[in-house]
Amino acid sequence: MYYPEPISKLIDSFTKLPGIGPKTAVRLAFFVLNMKEEDVLDFAKALVSAKRELTHCHICGNITDQDPCFICQDQSRDQSVICVVQDPKDVIAMEKMREYNGLYHILNGAISPIDGIGPEDINVPSLLDRLKDERVTELILATNPNVEGEATAMYISRLVKPSGIKTTRIAHGLPMGGDLEYADEVTLSKALEGRREL
Amino acid sequence: MYYPEPISKLIDSFTKLPGIGPKTAVRLAFFVLNMKEEDVLDFAKALVSAKRELTHCHICGNITDQDPCFICQDQSRDQSVICVVQDPKDVIAMEKMREYNGLYHILNGAISPIDGIGPEDINVPSLLDRLKDERVTELILATNPNVEGEATAMYISRLVKPSGIKTTRIAHGLPMGGDLEYADEVTLSKALEGRREL
Repeated sequence: MYYPEPISKLIDSFTKLPGIGPKTAVRLAFFVLNMKEEDVLDFAKALVSAKRELTHCHICGNITDQDPCFICQDQSRDQSVICVVQDPKDVIAMEKMREYNGLYHILNGAISPIDGIGPEDINVPSLLDRLKDERVTELILATNPNVEGEATAMYISRLVKPSGIKTTRIAHGLPMGGDLEYADEVTLSKALEGRREL
Repeated sequence: MYYPEPISKLIDSFTKLPGIGPKTAVRLAFFVLNMKEEDVLDFAKALVSAKRELTHCHICGNITDQDPCFICQDQSRDQSVICVVQDPKDVIAMEKMREYNGLYHILNGAISPIDGIGPEDINVPSLLDRLKDERVTELILATNPNVEGEATAMYISRLVKPSGIKTTRIAHGLPMGGDLEYADEVTLSKALEGRREL
């Protein structure tokens, strides 16, 4: 190796991150050398504590530093609606909207036979447990609009139907600010299918 | 903030790195959550030790974990040639070539009046000290082929001229594998100016 060991180890660590190739890793490592020592220590601490202090909420499956998470703890939220999403990042997207005040359930994945991920590998059993709470009246399925997400939504809706709880799927259609001309066929067909009377 | 504190701190740290925006920082932070704990600890250690254990070689100014650096210590290298570069990364580029066996001198910068960087801010005084060693017969100026690099090379060559040591500048011209059609005017003019008889 041409680099002194401490820096080549840091380059190796950066290379393990997604989307960071060897050249970017070198650039980042040299950037770290010129950072304030305080900032570097903060970075190192943040890495370790993010890994060690975060767990999954035992109720909703979200990533949290306290169990149950702050959303499940919040009694001011509407306890009658549960929004099912695939990923903790989806919760952030929903919360940024500031229009939804119900609860969440995070699957941490989606059914994908091609990757060997079946219904038992995602966070479904605890969802069924939560539905036993009679306050719950609606389940919003907000999995991603792709093959895996659709399959997962379909699977859950069939599972829940017998219980009589209303299950809804978020709408598919043209994104706002988009251009009909550039919409793909599948999206356009979904938009037409989902048309509503004004 | 929507994210639990440990992860939002990690996102902040990633955002401080060059070329990493808020969305990439979120992606990297969530990736870290799914990494093996061992790898995360190694990453954190690498950050701290790269910052703490590396210094500049007091002879050549290169980044090193031992002073003098392994190149300056290596008596098998040609002690009569010193190649002047701007940056420790340039040393790696030269070493990868496997054709140069002399010594290096790293300026850690280039003269740039517009950024307020004058000759006294780069590693020039120690270069002049090294030239007092009568074994040195040639100084290769391999600063970058841009305004700052050219100015720095010019400055050093004028400074060294009275001592009678041969100073050379690396050649400018078309890059190998390049295409004449796409070469910019400055490069083409340098290539023409530097033409040699076959």
